[in-house]
This record gives sequence, structure tokens and C-alpha cells, in this order.
Amino acid sequence: MTSFQLSAMEDMVEKFLDAAARGDLTQVSSHLSRVPSLINRTGCSGWTALMLAARNGHYQVAEMLVSLGCDKFSVNASSQTAYDIAKFWGHRHIAGLLSRSEGRRVLPGGEPHLQENYFSRETLDRLSARRTDEVWLEAKQKDPDTVYLLFSNLSPMVSASQEDDDEGHIQLCRLRYEAVKDLLEKPSTVLIFLGMERMKNPSSSQTSEPPVWFAVSTDEDPAELLRRCREATCSFPKSGNRDLLKFSEEDAGVVAQARSVLAWHSRYSFCPTCGSGTRLEQGGYKRSCLNSECRSQQGVHNTCYPRVDPVVIMLVIHPDGNQCLLGRKKVFPAGLFSCLSGFVEPGEAIEEAVRREVEEESGVKVGPVQYVSCQPWPMPSNLMLGCLAAAVSTDIKVDETELEEARWFPRQQVIDSLFRGASSTLIVPPRQTIAHQLIRHWISVNSNL
Amino acid sequence: MTSFQLSAMEDMVEKFLDAAARGDLTQVSSHLSRVPSLINRTGCSGWTALMLAARNGHYQVAEMLVSLGCDKFSVNASSQTAYDIAKFWGHRHIAGLLSRSEGRRVLPGGEPHLQENYFSRETLDRLSARRTDEVWLEAKQKDPDTVYLLFSNLSPMVSASQEDDDEGHIQLCRLRYEAVKDLLEKPSTVLIFLGMERMKNPSSSQTSEPPVWFAVSTDEDPAELLRRCREATCSFPKSGNRDLLKFSEEDAGVVAQARSVLAWHSRYSFCPTCGSGTRLEQGGYKRSCLNSECRSQQGVHNTCYPRVDPVVIMLVIHPDGNQCLLGRKKVFPAGLFSCLSGFVEPGEAIEEAVRREVEEESGVKVGPVQYVSCQPWPMPSNLMLGCLAAAVSTDIKVDETELEEARWFPRQQVIDSLFRGASSTLIVPPRQTIAHQLIRHWISVNSNL
Ligand SMILES: [Zn+2]
Ligand SMILES: [Zn+2]
Repeated sequence: MTSFQLSAMEDMVEKFLDAAARGDLTQVSSHLSRVPSLINRTGCSGWTALMLAARNGHYQVAEMLVSLGCDKFSVNASSQTAYDIAKFWGHRHIAGLLSRSEGRRVLPGGEPHLQENYFSRETLDRLSARRTDEVWLEAKQKDPDTVYLLFSNLSPMVSASQEDDDEGHIQLCRLRYEAVKDLLEKPSTVLIFLGMERMKNPSSSQTSEPPVWFAVSTDEDPAELLRRCREATCSFPKSGNRDLLKFSEEDAGVVAQARSVLAWHSRYSFCPTCGSGTRLEQGGYKRSCLNSECRSQQGVHNTCYPRVDPVVIMLVIHPDGNQCLLGRKKVFPAGLFSCLSGFVEPGEAIEEAVRREVEEESGVKVGPVQYVSCQPWPMPSNLMLGCLAAAVSTDIKVDETELEEARWFPRQQVIDSLFRGASSTLIVPPRQTIAHQLIRHWISVNSNL
Repeated sequence: MTSFQLSAMEDMVEKFLDAAARGDLTQVSSHLSRVPSLINRTGCSGWTALMLAARNGHYQVAEMLVSLGCDKFSVNASSQTAYDIAKFWGHRHIAGLLSRSEGRRVLPGGEPHLQENYFSRETLDRLSARRTDEVWLEAKQKDPDTVYLLFSNLSPMVSASQEDDDEGHIQLCRLRYEAVKDLLEKPSTVLIFLGMERMKNPSSSQTSEPPVWFAVSTDEDPAELLRRCREATCSFPKSGNRDLLKFSEEDAGVVAQARSVLAWHSRYSFCPTCGSGTRLEQGGYKRSCLNSECRSQQGVHNTCYPRVDPVVIMLVIHPDGNQCLLGRKKVFPAGLFSCLSGFVEPGEAIEEAVRREVEEESGVKVGPVQYVSCQPWPMPSNLMLGCLAAAVSTDIKVDETELEEARWFPRQQVIDSLFRGASSTLIVPPRQTIAHQLIRHWISVNSNL
């Protein structure tokens, strides 16, 4: 090729990629009809047209590129696929499209359910290998870009969200080293390494690593902490669980991680095997016994590591397919009904735990069980395993130590409650809960039949 | 109706039910073509034709009854559906048929995967409500029908299986009250209430409750225990995990429950919140702090209850759909490769844990993740969450602290290893592991495409 041809081709690649980045479906299509090989060409930092469309949320362009057979698995200079990019930037439809088409190729049984539940988003790369690298961790502590989250009595320091809304959203206060330096020197302070930010702008050439995040828990007087912080809008929410549901998806994911680990530290200061004190290690992910003779120094066991408690939560479907079983505890607000749930016991499979809990709490017998999605629930550290369950009996007999009432609700009443606001007879849990998402999943899949 | 007609009808019901119980497809069919209403008639103790076919493993009869619209949800005098009966008697094809047709009616996305993994079978009804009933528990301890399993250093007392095989199967020694009476009086003995046998012969009228089971853990000299037991064939296996894979499905399910709870007691004698001693309560399912001032006496927390650790284990599928990623640790026998796995961290969803672990251990990036089935793994108390995962990159970079090697294996080589015995280059884990079942699931679903 002559240098003229080369530069014309480069010019065309640039225009094609630019059209994809702008979401100009007509231009992308016209370029491809003339020069089909453009489809997998890359520009700056290895970005393809698909990646650019995914970055900027242009669903139709992404869909066309996929249906024309572009390479979905190529990665840019930051090792990200278009799927990674779509997911990172919160373009769920595109992430769904890309994972669907990938999933269809290699996973049996069609597309996996792609529900992302509140508390599930992983904004940070946990970099678990770095937890044992004390030199690196110490250097990062003093890095001026490092972000610190401050916790008092398991509540994070928050401020009102900058988003212009009236739903009372809150956001995490991101503190710097200077603000927490004194706290870090106190022996009672607990410091947890949370991870490193995933790259926000993967196409720009990185001159330095993205910031890392730590959580700091202190037993100092919260009023004093707030005074020192000098931000009038900061506070430590006191209403507990309800306030933890007011974050953005990104903040909620970080809170789930930080609060679960901190709750473990607050309850597991002593070695359960010998009763001795323990020392915090591995960036906050291990507590080792101070007694060198202790059995916890050897063998396979779990006493040194944070605890995660698996819980089954299930929407039970009536044999007629048109009603679901919801229950309420005495402490629930009036009208609120939710899915049944319970802890998985030692030596028990998820499906068996679902059958046992439903029968114990409501007397209803369950046949097949289907996993739908899960949710970390940091109160203190549960992993909620969300399932649909097919009832094979219908008589209800409530265990009154667990529930106040359990009832079959017709599909239409559930839809009314979900979409037309609360009816007087049924209020379902808020959207941040997996119970809500299970109900919505059942409604939506059923109406597609 | 005259009494003659009545008795003729009763006669016909009896013959129809008898034909179903014998699996006589021709007779069942001919009865139904003459008198269709026979289909839901019940005989002794409320048993329907479907229940009798399910009891005796007659798949074709069950299938015909279902396709002719019999009532699958009716229950007998023991509150069992035909599905319960088929499952209890180990007729998996029929249980699958019944749950499938139920599932199709009410669960979206078709049939749930019905894999029952080793360690998953629940032979006992845990009767968790009875754990706080000390009077009942004490009476059951002395009941001559009660079954005791004896554990020494987390190993159950076993004998060679009576099944005539050469695979070295073992079975649990079922002891009686007289044999363990002395042990129960020692303060160091740990006693766990496991549950009550599910009814073996649900059609017979029950004159008394089925036997309950306990696990007893003692720190007495194992040789002395065996001498007292006077059974020359009894032993405490010493090879640990490998021997735990030699039980029947029924015994394995009980071992999973008993060993997980006992492992917790062996490691959690002290209150992790304040370091004080603890007292065993609730049939062995709770340890309460002896310090009345301890924070563990109040609020929501998990320190008093047995621990279950969720672990993700995943078969990663190559983007070409025709290879899977397996890895080996240094300690594995030569040639053995298995699925990657790792603990779910606090605040982490299953799908994110799969992505993080695969990337950490092998460098491969994962897109969609699909839950397949789970397995309790009592070493010491894991809940293995088995998934298929679709890779979106292919380059392998092994973390050598975790794995010795990881490799893409072509489908045909995996099939050869599964069905034609071990090849020299690949040995897959034994059938009792969920890793084996995930591999088999991928192979079988893929070949049905
Ligand atoms: Zn210790
Ligand atoms: Zn205590």
C-alpha cells in the first residue's frame, strides 16, 4: 500500500470508531457495509467500536456490532472486554446483551439471570494478594490519594447525597490520610484494606495506580469525630439498617464489604479455640491467636477468618402458579409482608434448607427449588441466597415463634402493590431487598409466558 | 347406589391400586379407560395409584398417571405427596418426573437442575423446634430405640458395609443408649441432637414415633472405646477426608450434619466476644457465654451459632464452548485436575466471588455465571456453591501460591477421563465431589444441544 492508502485507512478507522463512540447508527452501518473488516479494528489503547459503544451506553450500536459478528472477547490495553466496560459504567442493558450472547454460546440452559442486587456491586478490586504485603499497605496508607471511610459503632460517616432528589439519599464521606492520621495511631482502631478503584477511564493512559480504599473503625466519641471533620453536613446515621439502604449502588457495595468485616472484628476479638487475645493481620482479613500453643496455629479450620452466614430466602409459588406465599413478623410495619427466610444449617444443602424453613415456618411443603440470585446483607454478614420454590401442598400452619401471619397472595394483588403503590392490605419490601427482587422476578418472568 | 354396586366399586378401586403398585401398565390403563374417575381414588391410609407407583419405582405407570392429569399434590395419611415418597425410596427418575411436571407449572425458566450431591441427603428431619425442649430431649436420650453415632477426634465409628462390594464401603455404627450411657455423664462429652428418622413405611399406621438420632463426641482413648464396643469390625478411620467419601448417600448426609456441628464445638469452646467459657445449649446448636455481662447476651449477632462457610466452586468454560479450565494444587495426586474454588468474602455476591477467584488463581476473566447445584462439605463446615462460568478471556497466568498448574482441557479429553477410565494426562475428582458433578453436568448438557 502507498502511504496515501495507509493514511486513508487510518482516517476511516478513526471515523468509524468515532461514529460508534457517538452512537451514530447510520454512519457505523454505512462504514461497515463498505469495509466489513473495520468491525474489529482498534484505535487508541486497543479500544474497539464495541468497547466505545459500551462505554457510552449506545445499545443499538452494540447490538448491531454483535449481530454482525464482531469479536466480543478482545481486550483493550487495560485487559477489559466490552462487557467489563459496560458493567463498570453502569450500562446494564449492554452488559446484559454482551453477557447474554456470550452466555448463550457456552452455558447450558440459556441465559443466566443477571439481576444485580443492592449491596452486590464491586466497585473496588479487592487485591487480596496485597493483604500480606505490609510494606505496600503501609505506603498506601500515607498516599494522599488514598480514600478512608470512617466507622463508629458500625455506622459509616455519611453526608447528604449531591444528587438532586428528595428520597433522602446519602453518600459515604471520603476522608484523606491527614484526617485520620491520629486515629490510625490508637491501638483500639481497626483498619481494613478494602481494595483499589477499578479504572474509571480505561482508555486514558495510566500514569499512576488508581486510589486504594481503607475502612477505619474507632471507638472515639462520634460527636468529637464530627467536630474534627469540620463538615457540618456529616453524620453517623443512628437508625441502623434503614439508613444503610439509602446509598448509591456503588457506595452500597463498599459498605457491604466494610461493615461485614468490621462487624466480625467487633465480635471476634478473642480466640474461640483457647480464649486468648488475638492480633489483626492481613489488612484486616485475619485475626491470629496470641497464644503460640493454641491449636488455631495449625491445621484446617476457620477461626481466624471473617465469617459469612448463608441464608436462604424464598418466594414460594402456589401449585396453581398464580399465588405466592408471603409472611410477616410481629415487628414488621403494618401491612408489610415478605419472603420467608432462614439460616442454612451445618451439613445442609440450599434446596433442603428452603424445604425445611418453609415447612417449619408455614407448614407448606416444597418440591423443586430454583436459585435466582444472591445478595450480601451486612447485618452483620449474611449471604442471602434467593430462590423460587414450588409448593406441593397449600395448607398454612404458622409457627408463631417465627411469624405472626403467612398467607397466599394472588398475583394481581402483588402486581398492584408493586406498581400502583401500596394497597392497604399488602406492602412489599423496598427495592433494595432481595425479597423485592424475587417477587419482581416472579411477576416479570410469569408475564412473559 | 345399592350395596352391591358399592362393593363392586370398592373392588375395582382395590384392583386398580394393586395394578399400579405392581407396575402393571396394561391393567392400569384398561381400568382408567373404563372408569376415568379411578385416577384419584385412594386406598388404605390415603394412598393413590401415583403414590403406590412412586413407592415401588414403576416409572411408566407414574408417567401415564401424570400425563392423564392425576392429582400430584394430594397427600396420604402421613402428609406425603407422591414426590416425597419417590424421593424417600430413592426412585430418582420418578422424583424427577414429579418435580419436573410440578416445576414446569409454576417455576419460570423450565426445570430446576435436580442433582443430589453426596453429603446432601437429609435422612433425618432436624426438628429444630425440639432443640429447646429439654424434657423431650432427655426422654429421647434414654429411649431404647434412639440411635447414637460415636465420634472420636471428628472421626465417626464405622464398620465395613454389609453391601457386597469391593469398593471398601463403610457404614456408621448405630449404638444404643446402653452403649453410650457412661460417656454421656462425662462433662467433656458433646451431645448433638441430629433429628428424627423420616417415616420408612409411610403407609403403615404408626403406633409410635420413629427413632431419633444423636451424635456423641468424646475425648476418651479410641482404642478403649473400640474394646468396650465389643465389635471387632468397628474402627475410627484415620485417613480423614478420603474415608468420609466411602459411605452410602444416607449415611453421608448424616455425617455431614454431625461432623460440621462437632467441628464447630471443637474450635469454639470460648466466647469470641469476651474470651469467657461457654455452655452448650439447644441440643448442641448453640453455645452461650457464661459471662452474664457479655455483649453476646444481647442484640443481633452470630457468635453463639454454628458456622457455615460458603465456598464457590466453578467449571470455567472457554469462549469456544469446547474446553474447560481445570487446575491442580501441588498436593494433588499426579494427573488429578479439578475445578477452581475459593471462599466467598464478606460483602461479596456468589457471581463476584467466582469472577474474583478465577482471575486471582488463573488470570482468566469470567463473564456470566450460572448456579448449578450445591454440596455441604463437612471439612470442617463448607457449603460448596457449584457454578458454570463463561470465560471472556483465555490467557492463563497461574497464581503459584494457590495452584501448581491450570490448563484448558478439550471436551473429548474430559469425556475420555470420565467414561473410559483415567487417561495418563487427566484424572478428574471422584463422583462424590461437586467438582466431578459440575464436569459431568457440562458434558451431559452440552451433548444434548
Ligand atoms: Zn487460641
Ligand atoms: Zn462472652
